[in-house]
Amino acid sequence: MARSANSPSRAVRPRAAPPSADRRAPEDKPPESGGPLAVELIKDLAAASRILAAQGVVDGFGHVSMRHPSAPDRYLMARSIAPALVTPGDMIEYNLESVPCNANGRASFLERFIHSAIYRARPDVMSVVHSHSPAVVPFGLVGVTMQAMFHNAAFIAAGVPVFDIREGFGATDMLVGNEAKGAALAEVMGDKDIVLMRAHGSVACGPSLQTAVFRAVYTEVNARIQHWTMALGGGATIAALDDEEGRLADAVNQTAARRAWDLWRSQVKW
Amino acid sequence: MARSANSPSRAVRPRAAPPSADRRAPEDKPPESGGPLAVELIKDLAAASRILAAQGVVDGFGHVSMRHPSAPDRYLMARSIAPALVTPGDMIEYNLESVPCNANGRASFLERFIHSAIYRARPDVMSVVHSHSPAVVPFGLVGVTMQAMFHNAAFIAAGVPVFDIREGFGATDMLVGNEAKGAALAEVMGDKDIVLMRAHGSVACGPSLQTAVFRAVYTEVNARIQHWTMALGGGATIAALDDEEGRLADAVNQTAARRAWDLWRSQVKW
Amino acid sequence: MARSANSPSRAVRPRAAPPSADRRAPEDKPPESGGPLAVELIKDLAAASRILAAQGVVDGFGHVSMRHPSAPDRYLMARSIAPALVTPGDMIEYNLESVPCNANGRASFLERFIHSAIYRARPDVMSVVHSHSPAVVPFGLVGVTMQAMFHNAAFIAAGVPVFDIREGFGATDMLVGNEAKGAALAEVMGDKDIVLMRAHGSVACGPSLQTAVFRAVYTEVNARIQHWTMALGGGATIAALDDEEGRLADAVNQTAARRAWDLWRSQVKW
Amino acid sequence: MARSANSPSRAVRPRAAPPSADRRAPEDKPPESGGPLAVELIKDLAAASRILAAQGVVDGFGHVSMRHPSAPDRYLMARSIAPALVTPGDMIEYNLESVPCNANGRASFLERFIHSAIYRARPDVMSVVHSHSPAVVPFGLVGVTMQAMFHNAAFIAAGVPVFDIREGFGATDMLVGNEAKGAALAEVMGDKDIVLMRAHGSVACGPSLQTAVFRAVYTEVNARIQHWTMALGGGATIAALDDEEGRLADAVNQTAARRAWDLWRSQVKW
Repeated sequence: MARSANSPSRAVRPRAAPPSADRRAPEDKPPESGGPLAVELIKDLAAASRILAAQGVVDGFGHVSMRHPSAPDRYLMARSIAPALVTPGDMIEYNLESVPCNANGRASFLERFIHSAIYRARPDVMSVVHSHSPAVVPFGLVGVTMQAMFHNAAFIAAGVPVFDIREGFGATDMLVGNEAKGAALAEVMGDKDIVLMRAHGSVACGPSLQTAVFRAVYTEVNARIQHWTMALGGGATIAALDDEEGRLADAVNQTAARRAWDLWRSQVKW
Repeated sequence: MARSANSPSRAVRPRAAPPSADRRAPEDKPPESGGPLAVELIKDLAAASRILAAQGVVDGFGHVSMRHPSAPDRYLMARSIAPALVTPGDMIEYNLESVPCNANGRASFLERFIHSAIYRARPDVMSVVHSHSPAVVPFGLVGVTMQAMFHNAAFIAAGVPVFDIREGFGATDMLVGNEAKGAALAEVMGDKDIVLMRAHGSVACGPSLQTAVFRAVYTEVNARIQHWTMALGGGATIAALDDEEGRLADAVNQTAARRAWDLWRSQVKW
Repeated sequence: MARSANSPSRAVRPRAAPPSADRRAPEDKPPESGGPLAVELIKDLAAASRILAAQGVVDGFGHVSMRHPSAPDRYLMARSIAPALVTPGDMIEYNLESVPCNANGRASFLERFIHSAIYRARPDVMSVVHSHSPAVVPFGLVGVTMQAMFHNAAFIAAGVPVFDIREGFGATDMLVGNEAKGAALAEVMGDKDIVLMRAHGSVACGPSLQTAVFRAVYTEVNARIQHWTMALGGGATIAALDDEEGRLADAVNQTAARRAWDLWRSQVKW
Repeated sequence: MARSANSPSRAVRPRAAPPSADRRAPEDKPPESGGPLAVELIKDLAAASRILAAQGVVDGFGHVSMRHPSAPDRYLMARSIAPALVTPGDMIEYNLESVPCNANGRASFLERFIHSAIYRARPDVMSVVHSHSPAVVPFGLVGVTMQAMFHNAAFIAAGVPVFDIREGFGATDMLVGNEAKGAALAEVMGDKDIVLMRAHGSVACGPSLQTAVFRAVYTEVNARIQHWTMALGGGATIAALDDEEGRLADAVNQTAARRAWDLWRSQVKW
């Protein structure tokens, strides 16, 4: 759901909630798990990876995570593997410093700090998608703001900030590969549900796995439509969704995302 | 078939025909059915959903309906489900207020009022397709008129009105979710067979299911061609089909649509 | 192979060769066949239809023909059917007035006159492809000339005329549906191997079935590349193949087309 | 890994190393083999061809080679065949004059000299991909420089020279069909890992087969993104990767290419 940029309750916070003491790990032990999850949730998370690949949002790269439903200071994400190959057995649980609870020798994504930083800063976010979907990248490169071209991308009407890693960190390998970079990204994102990353990609979030996936898919579709629209209009004002239309349509999309999910989920082959 | 915008016989009417009294339902009963249909017609309607998905006209959203062939005050459309998943068993019959005759607990599309309003206003329309096909959306956003780039999209030469829901209803969730919004859309469409919806999508109609599907497909193809053409021409006049060419070519397309349909129908897998 | 526009031997002629008297048919009998063909040739012609569909050059519409290899006043083309569905059993033989020798009640393509007119006017042409491939259509609408963007489309460097059916025939259904229209098209094509049709599509020809198919495929690819190139250059001169490069590269393509054909042919499923 | 254009150690050299005397062949004998290779390497090279076809980098044309891992004056490449059809049994070994060691009557690619010339000039290059991927071609036609739009294409930040065969060889068939043309191409490429070929295509290189394939794929993706970006920006400066960002990100890509390779390799069907 799109929210007002002025809402004080949505200000960036350093942590959603302090982890309970009994889940802190000593230096030489991994953090404790937030507890077991329903198998269907793990399957849905694995399916989300394959859905994003099937929809052209991710290729060999990109990742989707979900916050642990009963332990808000834990999240789940696949080991480092191409999204189209993810299976339920690939899931790793992390604390909000992105330290794995159960890696068992499996490699983690370098950019998992995108996820932990957003879960720390935004208690309402339950799922995060990071991708390099191609039509979106240009909006991080030339100072043209992405707008909501149609109702399916309504959440974009709330605004689309751009994170330039160079501003805080100089010349880098462009990856959000540690907590400081993750925190800087989350700060730029603020109370929006999307943030672009200059010369890199974007992040879409949501209050559920289904909504985060839906938003990532329609961010790419919206970007393609906006490329056409701007070329067609030649600088003319675009009659995009305004703030209120965005809020109203996004509320409907929370439900609509389920219908799209049912379709995409039915197409996943393991 | 494209028609003259001036033809008095094509003026917008509130209803195609008053429903016969015996099909009116009391408050607590659903409307009566218009009568049984041939199984092949139901299969064709279900196939049309899957064809539109296969052709990229619809994704998780969008719908196609057909007027009941022997009861002009009834129409048929799938329950609320992604178009690629529709089967013959998903069909629901509606009256022209979009009240279901046989929902049996199944959910209806929120935007079924697009369909009922057009069937009320336009006795000649036997089938309606609503979609968000991506290349078409820009033409509802920047005041550039869609033109018929080639003979397969000839029906576009008659004109392409744009409906902006904001004009009559202020800030909304963008959906045509009741009778008043449907009627406003149908009024803007007038005697054309297409109407664009600002920041949303479009509607294509026809005197048969096959022609409506054909027009929806070629509206998207035409839009892509026009994007290329306008970029290429840089503002030069486009030698699109003129009114008379549009009428003549559209008449041929009524038959040609059958050949395309035979191809698409053969590719449907249940 | 591209040819000089000045070559007197390439002037348009009314007929390649007068049909032998014994193949003339009385009013009430179909024309005689030019004689039996090798089964492999018929299979290749059917495969060509499916290849063009698989490559996105044709959709539900479009057709490919080949001149009878031992009877230059006969050609072969499928009955009226979507290209992706053509089988060897669908072939009909025609004389150069496009009268079928062996229709046996099967319907013919309305636009077969494109083919007969070109075979009459151009003895060197052994195969003709007619399509509405989408990236090509814009070049018939705004007065921008198609150029050869890369060596695979070298034959385009010889020039790409545009046929506007309106010039000779006024407002029509846009179809080349009789001999007069076919002859007018062939005259505009002249000694080139391609002609665009305003608000309709294009025709590509060659000295073999494989080369005609190759040229039709790379005309569409070339058009897409030119759209990108013109947008990128913003009016700058394009360093396209010049006339001589076009001739030299096209000669190589006659052989190269075989390698592409072998790939495409291997992918045809009946 | 991107390298400094000033590095004297990267200057163009006529040969990486003189071939050992015992591998020189008399006029009537083919050159000796550099020795047997692991079957897995040959399979990977064949898979690379099919991967490039599946990713849309090559169509019926294009080729990928790898330097012999234990004999730097030999390289391996498929016989002349469409990339999607290559099998391990199609490999031919060549010396650095592109004379086949073991053709056994099989035809070689006309443009194998692209590969031998680069292996001669650049000891660090272990694999070469030549393609005509469509979004890249425009950058060789209008004097607009390709830049690195995102980190996956980081190697592009080092610069993208353009080879115009016309400069050294006048009007040709556009093919790099002999040693002199190959050497001229390699000289223009210099110490970069990519070179565009005017009105033809491009070449991407790398220190491993996996990296060369990765770079060829992301060159095409990058080109598509740059087309959108330039249209969006309308001439505005693009915040592409700068030189140092390019070097840092490209170093990471050497490893990341493996994850993409694992995905693509898993999708190869023989």
